[in-house]
Amino acid sequence: MFRTLAAASAALGPQAAGWVRTMASHQLLVAPPEALFKPLTIPSRLLLGPGPANLAPRAQAAGALQMIGHMHKEMHQIMDEIKQGIQYVFQTKNPLTLAISGSGHCALEAALFNILEPGDSFLVGVSGIWGQRAADIGERIGAQVHPMVKEPGGYHTLQEVEEGLAQHKPELLFLTQGESSSGVLQPLDGYGELCHRYKCLLLVDSVASLGGAPIFMDQQGIDILYSGSQKVLNAPPGTSLISFSDKARSKIYARKTKPFSFYLDIKWLANFWGCDDKPRIYHHTTPNISLYSLRESLALIAEQGLEESWRRHREATAYLHGRLQGLGLQLFVKDPALRLPTVTTVAAPAGYDWRDIVNYVMDHFSIEITGGLGPSLGKVLRIGLLGCNATRENVDRVIAALQAALQHCPRNKL
Amino acid sequence: MFRTLAAASAALGPQAAGWVRTMASHQLLVAPPEALFKPLTIPSRLLLGPGPANLAPRAQAAGALQMIGHMHKEMHQIMDEIKQGIQYVFQTKNPLTLAISGSGHCALEAALFNILEPGDSFLVGVSGIWGQRAADIGERIGAQVHPMVKEPGGYHTLQEVEEGLAQHKPELLFLTQGESSSGVLQPLDGYGELCHRYKCLLLVDSVASLGGAPIFMDQQGIDILYSGSQKVLNAPPGTSLISFSDKARSKIYARKTKPFSFYLDIKWLANFWGCDDKPRIYHHTTPNISLYSLRESLALIAEQGLEESWRRHREATAYLHGRLQGLGLQLFVKDPALRLPTVTTVAAPAGYDWRDIVNYVMDHFSIEITGGLGPSLGKVLRIGLLGCNATRENVDRVIAALQAALQHCPRNKL
Repeated sequence: MFRTLAAASAALGPQAAGWVRTMASHQLLVAPPEALFKPLTIPSRLLLGPGPANLAPRAQAAGALQMIGHMHKEMHQIMDEIKQGIQYVFQTKNPLTLAISGSGHCALEAALFNILEPGDSFLVGVSGIWGQRAADIGERIGAQVHPMVKEPGGYHTLQEVEEGLAQHKPELLFLTQGESSSGVLQPLDGYGELCHRYKCLLLVDSVASLGGAPIFMDQQGIDILYSGSQKVLNAPPGTSLISFSDKARSKIYARKTKPFSFYLDIKWLANFWGCDDKPRIYHHTTPNISLYSLRESLALIAEQGLEESWRRHREATAYLHGRLQGLGLQLFVKDPALRLPTVTTVAAPAGYDWRDIVNYVMDHFSIEITGGLGPSLGKVLRIGLLGCNATRENVDRVIAALQAALQHCPRNKL
Repeated sequence: MFRTLAAASAALGPQAAGWVRTMASHQLLVAPPEALFKPLTIPSRLLLGPGPANLAPRAQAAGALQMIGHMHKEMHQIMDEIKQGIQYVFQTKNPLTLAISGSGHCALEAALFNILEPGDSFLVGVSGIWGQRAADIGERIGAQVHPMVKEPGGYHTLQEVEEGLAQHKPELLFLTQGESSSGVLQPLDGYGELCHRYKCLLLVDSVASLGGAPIFMDQQGIDILYSGSQKVLNAPPGTSLISFSDKARSKIYARKTKPFSFYLDIKWLANFWGCDDKPRIYHHTTPNISLYSLRESLALIAEQGLEESWRRHREATAYLHGRLQGLGLQLFVKDPALRLPTVTTVAAPAGYDWRDIVNYVMDHFSIEITGGLGPSLGKVLRIGLLGCNATRENVDRVIAALQAALQHCPRNKL
């Protein structure tokens, strides 16, 4: 090494001084890892869990494009198109609509960090893992958190929410439209109006439902709505969608304290995403390649039309439900009107270890289905039909795999 | 719409009940945006700004691969390989080493959110925009922030740091190795040892320098080190690299309060990334496609070798410096030993509006160079030679473009 250094030093002169000093006093003690000398190979999988889903071919192809800068006008154009696409899939005219540079959890934090101030009252509908996490984050940032807890499979009625609003006088209510851990579709009609009567903002998680179940942000009076890229949209995970009503925006701009996060500070992001009339100021380096794919996935749903996307999910999932019942399996959500049209929960088959079934389907068919999550762990199997995966052909494939699993997995070992 | 709904309702029976109710009481008021019906086109650019850089062909190709699940064993293998790759480029044996699902700013927040508790004393070396941002985030989370401010072009000496340590008794010191806004390479030898004498942890930002300037995390006593994916590594932005020493880990695990962020809670991430000996628990959905590319970019630098990567950057940048001086331009950083081997700052040419030059180079040559940022705005032009972009050919291209710009842009209009 020293011979090279001396040569470099001679060649480069004073420019090398700091470099030579550092190099001379240290040496490489950590070798390049052997594992990185092997090629990267990705197996082919049919992803029929609760997400991520397979990429749509067009979103996948966009992942292979070359970089441009985050401040180039072409990137601003793509960001503008993404904003319009989100406005369409959310059915909102909110100017404060943008993509977050992180997963759905990051969007949840963006919502809570910006809306809540320490001491604010926060009413949380907990009907599975997402409500638990919203409550956890609310506590971390010093809100007064009031969870309304449902057993997996339940949802929050207007009457229960009104009782919570009257009792806790919250600044914010959290509901999950598509509770992917239990397979429940939380109704949303009337909740926004109710919240506003109590001067409360309504925050809705639509990560697992957007594009599969109808949602009308403006008409339903939802103040903050977020979703993910890797479910029905069939884009890579790593970006998420969020929008704020004028009421929500006003609460943010009237804050007494700065949000804890700079990365997720909506005032900065609003400018960076061109949601105000000021020149865009550099905030952070956006995940441009992921945004290309998100743009393409929003283009796909715009071309298809929301109603067609809802219809396809409802029909494929109804077909799945029929086939599951044909295998003698029980749907976990009893009321058909409350079943998510994207992620189906099946009561874990009696006598089996659910892990055996999930593993059998993966090992023999290369199909992902999953067990429960959080409160539903051990109680259910979960099958997702998300975006381009929502087809009768895929239902037939997963049913054949399940049938084989039920035949071959050990019974009554529990 | 109602005709379709009625037909769907009849076909699907009770399953459609909730859907039909919601659809019947609302209608699509936001049309699919026209802009999304046009194809996505990405122009070809040579990205010689301070980053993002162009993607390495192999990292780019990985962006076109299909999804697998974030809990699949193949994904865990890729995450393990990324950890090993980070340990190599950081020259560390820290078990608590992983990738953050967000940009370099997000990694900075991950460091500060986990290390600092409200009231902690935080000493910040501010020699450009990154120190400003670290100070901003420190204030947001309630730390006692003590900035040590340098004019752009300066760096923090051991003596100055020792004065700050003695005066403010901080829990944490922040330094930027590669201050991309000023083009300064902050020396790091001796700072870790000094911090530890004062029972202070050392946090270093190497976003703009990693892979271009030598760094030895363990030997230099750096407690928390982070970097980005989109600079020398030539991977897409959206993931970042971070590692914590045992001292830093101990401070995190002895916290009295939870970090404000769940998304960036290192105790969760440590488990999720297999940095402890417990079974991995779902935390968030990782940006898998971006992680494929990051894995490939780490493989490229492992194959090339760190010393070769450092040498290539130093040589290409020395060649750039000579060519710039040949045009009659002045390097902004006077001491050659303090010049970053990745991002070069040139004093803004007298008589010109720097924006004209940047725009000319982009419009006529499709090459990105940039102006200053934060404290260096208006004072400099910035040219980055990052990873696969660090070649003599690229230097020749940008010099030809600059020469033309200097000939054709209006002079003395300021």
